[in-house]
Formats: sequence, C-alpha cells, structure tokens
Amino acid sequence: MERNIARLRARLDRLGVSLRPHLKTAKSVDVARRVMTSPAGPATVSTLREAAQFAAAGVRDIIYAVGIAPSKLPHVLELRAQGADLAVVLDTVEQAQAVAQASRQAGTRIPALIEIDCDGHRSGVLPTNAQRLVEIGRALEAGAELRGVLTHAGGSYTARGSEALRQCAEAERRSVVEAATTLREAGLACPVVSVGSTPTAHNATDLTGVTEVRAGVFVFFDLVMAGIGVCQFEDIAVSVLATVVGHQRDKGWILVDAGWMALSQDRGTRKQPVDQGYGLVCDAAGTPYADLIVADANQEHGIITVRPGSDGVLPDLAIGDRVRILPNHACATTAQHRSYHVVRGSSDKVEAEWSRFGGWQ
Amino acid sequence: MERNIARLRARLDRLGVSLRPHLKTAKSVDVARRVMTSPAGPATVSTLREAAQFAAAGVRDIIYAVGIAPSKLPHVLELRAQGADLAVVLDTVEQAQAVAQASRQAGTRIPALIEIDCDGHRSGVLPTNAQRLVEIGRALEAGAELRGVLTHAGGSYTARGSEALRQCAEAERRSVVEAATTLREAGLACPVVSVGSTPTAHNATDLTGVTEVRAGVFVFFDLVMAGIGVCQFEDIAVSVLATVVGHQRDKGWILVDAGWMALSQDRGTRKQPVDQGYGLVCDAAGTPYADLIVADANQEHGIITVRPGSDGVLPDLAIGDRVRILPNHACATTAQHRSYHVVRGSSDKVEAEWSRFGGWQ
Repeated sequence: MERNIARLRARLDRLGVSLRPHLKTAKSVDVARRVMTSPAGPATVSTLREAAQFAAAGVRDIIYAVGIAPSKLPHVLELRAQGADLAVVLDTVEQAQAVAQASRQAGTRIPALIEIDCDGHRSGVLPTNAQRLVEIGRALEAGAELRGVLTHAGGSYTARGSEALRQCAEAERRSVVEAATTLREAGLACPVVSVGSTPTAHNATDLTGVTEVRAGVFVFFDLVMAGIGVCQFEDIAVSVLATVVGHQRDKGWILVDAGWMALSQDRGTRKQPVDQGYGLVCDAAGTPYADLIVADANQEHGIITVRPGSDGVLPDLAIGDRVRILPNHACATTAQHRSYHVVRGSSDKVEAEWSRFGGWQ
Repeated sequence: MERNIARLRARLDRLGVSLRPHLKTAKSVDVARRVMTSPAGPATVSTLREAAQFAAAGVRDIIYAVGIAPSKLPHVLELRAQGADLAVVLDTVEQAQAVAQASRQAGTRIPALIEIDCDGHRSGVLPTNAQRLVEIGRALEAGAELRGVLTHAGGSYTARGSEALRQCAEAERRSVVEAATTLREAGLACPVVSVGSTPTAHNATDLTGVTEVRAGVFVFFDLVMAGIGVCQFEDIAVSVLATVVGHQRDKGWILVDAGWMALSQDRGTRKQPVDQGYGLVCDAAGTPYADLIVADANQEHGIITVRPGSDGVLPDLAIGDRVRILPNHACATTAQHRSYHVVRGSSDKVEAEWSRFGGWQ
C-alpha cells in the first residue's frame, strides 16, 4: 500500500497536479491518513457517512462526488457548520436551484461542482452543452458557489492497454477543460478542474488545464486493475486469508471458508482476457499459485480449482492450511469486512488492526 | 417477516418436525428472537462470530454448519464452556479425529454431525458410502459425540416448479435417512437427522425419519425465491430505500443513490426466466412498478430502466423522490448494511432499528 501511494504521488507531482484521493475504497481513517497529502485533505467521498466520519477525523477539504439530492442538503450544511469545507456535485438546473436556495436559507454558500460526462458512462452534462452548463452555473451563483467542474472516466475500466488508457485520460481532460472554458467565457469562476479514475491517473501524459486528480482503488489495487495492466499481482495490497475446510477430490475441488460473503460477488475479471473467478489463490505468504482460482463461491464456501483449461496441478493442501485470495475488486471485497489486519510484506505478523466503517447516513 | 415465519412454522408443525432456523440471513439478535422457537434455540449459524453473538444473547442449541477446521476448535470449546451447546459439522475422518482429540484434551465431548452430500452441490459424504460414514462415526466416538447427520439441498435453488422442488426435498430426506440407518446399523447413535433449504422446506410433503429442518432466507424471502415460485413479491420483507439523484432522459435512465454497495452484486435472477437485474423497483410504499428494474449498478449509483424488451413506460420520478428496491438475494443485500429500519406493512414510520453484525471470528 505504501508503495502504491508513493507511485501515484510521484506521477502526479511530475504532471503538476494535486491528488484528491477517493476514500471510498478503504473507508478507513488509518488508510486515509496515509493516502492524503495532509491530515486536512483534500479528499473525495461517495457517501455523507464517509464525509461525516472523515470530517470527524479532521479532514477539511472534501468533495461528495455523487449527485446531490435536496433531502441531503441539511446534512451537508451541518457538516459545513462543523468546519468541513464539503462540496457537492450536480448536473441539473433543478439541483443547482435547490443548492442555491438551501444556501440562502442557511446564510452560507454551499460549493458545488458541475459533473461532466466525458464518455457516456453514467451521469453528467455533455461538455458540448454550453447552454446547460451556463444555466447551471448561473443558478448556482444565485446563492451558492460554483466551485468547478468534475468528471470520472468510468469507461476506462473496460479499456485495455496503455494507448487506449492514454486516450481515455485525454478525453477525460479535454471534457472538463472545455466545460471550464465555456463557464469562464460566460463570466463564471471555475477554479477547480477535477478528473479521476485509477486507470487514467496512471496513464495520463498531459494534464494541462486540470487542477486535481481523484483516484481510489490505486491504494490497494486488485485483479481487475492487473488485468487492465495498471498494476502487477505483487502490487495488490489486500487479500482475504482463508482456511481449507474440505475436499472433493473426484471433482478437483478444495473447499475454503471464504465464500462470497468474504470475497464479494464481484466478477470484474469475467470479461477480461484472463478470468480470475472469485479471486486468485496465493500461499499464506502471498505468492500466487499461477493457475489456482476460486472458481465458484457459495455464501461461506469458496471452491478452489485449477483454472479451467489449464494443465496445472492442484496443490496438496490439507484441512486447516491457509491461503490468501487476491480480490477482483478491492472496493467490493473490503466492503465485506469490518477491519483490516495490517501486515508488512510477506510477514504474517499483524502489526495493527484498522477499522473500516460502512453505511450511508 | 412475521407472516413468513408463521407460514413456515405452520408447515413444519403439520409435517411433525422442528425448525432450526439459519440465522446467517439476518445476523440480527432481534430477528433471531422472532424466528426461533424459543430464546434458547434451536439455531443454525454459518460462522463462529454468529455462534458467539447469538450465544451471548442466550441461544443455547446451535449447529455451526460449515465444515470445521481444527484451528477453530479452541473457539468452539470456549463457547461450549460458556454454556452454549454448540455442535460442529464435518465430512472426513481427519476432521473427526481432530474433534475427538480436542475433546479428549479438553475433557469434554464436542458434538459433531456428519455432512451428507444429497445432490452433488458442494460438500459432504455420499449417503451410499457406508464405509466412510462408519469410519467417521467411530473416529468421533473415540472422544467426541456423534450427534447426527445433516444435509443441505443446495441444488434446489436452481430447480423450478413445485414437482421438481418436491423431488429435491425427497432426495434430501432420503439421503440423511439412509446415512442415519447405516450409522445405526453399525451400532452408532444418530439422534439428529437434519435437512434444510428454504425451497425444500416449503415443498417437502413427507419428512419421515427427519427430526429437524434448517432454513434461512424464508424469513425475508427475495426475488430468487419468487422466481423459483416459493413466495410472491408481496412476501419479500426487506428492501433498500433509495433516492433519485439524476436522469439520463435520452437513455431512459433514472439514477438512484443505491449502487451495488447498497444492493450487493448478487445477480441470482440472471439465469431465471425473469431477470430482475440488480433488483425490482417499487414505489416508496412497496408496490412494484411491474417492469422497472435496476438494470445496472456502479458502486454508489443504481441505473433504473424499464425492463429490456418491455413496452412499459418510465415513471416521472423527480430528483429527491424515493423508491424501494427488492433484492435478488436477501442474504447478500442485507450483508451490505449495518442495521434494519423496521416498518409495518406499507407504513414509512420506522418503529425500530435492529442492528446487524458481520465478520467471522
């Protein structure tokens, strides 16, 4: 984890932009303190629970990066009144009007970023839709604060190879720079120009006009990121420690006590060239068995087999032996757990236990 | 939930067997107290954390229904020493020897059930493998206690229609009765003969020779169970309350703030005749929109659309409106949450908040 953080920081330093890590991956104050540039942030969150937990731990500069609903504005105002500079994200005039109205009623200016759609992935205003951008900006300025523009290249998760990823990063950059230019030409301030996804953060070669990069999963990495080519297996900094509880020798199965409750049901590598099932199996020290995967998962049982089509051999693991399972998607697998047991390198000595929170409100 | 519990209890009363509910679905002391026959049990659990939590709440008669690893026996002994009659499950001679040895060392007899494989689904001894059954039974009796036999018709989750499910239930019954007979003919006591899955529990017509039924998901039910035909949508007693946070009108999308972090990634209806996506959408009072599903889910965003292929119309939901989403798999979706907000019928008045625990140790 420390190496992953240092690697992205060095990249972004070279590109001249700041890192606003997305804290949704780890949902841990201990991890946040290590991944943020300073104890006060900046940081990105995906729920108001995250905003509240990190604000309580002293984080001050926070973007809540999921489209705001008016019913959440009282909670946003409460966190701001407690000292956090919490900004919201939106992509409609209605939301901007609600944020401006709530700001006026509270006698403060809630900062908001306009979400830009850079790749048709999910939400946001098209960067070419100048009219809507300016309408949202003006609606905000009637009481609230237009903090800037923000986008997320969600499409980069299905790209492959550094050239395709570099193109995703350039499309991401261009979309927000274009939107910021439109707003500024209309006389609106647009100080923050924010992009972010782990694949584009690791492949952008030019971030001219961008002020900050958001990324989350890079802190742990996972098999999906390895499949995209953004990391190696040995960079994956989180695993599930499981115990062998049975065999079905006729079927070539080893049963472990980690099913989808422990691994999650994320099958993000299914559509990648190498399908890692529910996770890649390593020995207890973290060295992968090249062709051993969790081929299927029930609630509390994982079924380990040699990868279908491989001529590998099932290792001779006895009941009670331990294995480590690398996750497809770190955000999903860690969400199944309430704390992290921290080890250094391949040591099995637990140096610390870091708690992890969940929930939304 | 109350109706679901009453329904299964009435069925099993008619069949003359007792209910040993599987508490892994809700992982809640409040739900456990309502679903168990008595405050002391009986109960089934899937982790030692569940055993410890429910034992601390006064449950005494517990089966830990995942194959035991020797490293877990000290924890089992500790919980037994605190007063819980906690039994373990196994399917190999090695495990039986480990349980007998740990029993002798502790000066007690750990009760164990032999897991039987009734349908090739996962684990267990084939009921026809008399030699292995008797070897395990004898290994247990050298220090531990052979409490009985147990099976789980995991294959019933992919069966369809009441006749197919009745056959699953009969195969489940026959497998354990055959195994119990083999053990008794070898002079071994086998007091408990345990079967269980929600689909078979609701379709068995004869449970001769069976002493108890385990079932878990029946307490909440879900879309997978509705797809199998075991319940109706209106029986589903758990939902995720979500708020509309955006639209992509060109694409026919409504975005809500419940992604897979809130819904889980369970896609258990994918292979059923009606694919419910990541969940069926209801209005805030719980009445389903016939053809509205969560078609895709990102971490904190759900994408609601009309069901692909349907000629239904997207309702006019505004940002801030609320919907309830019925889960594919109650065990998976509830695992994404830390408490239940309890309402009665279609009321939105929260009468109580029931906490839910997670973890393994």
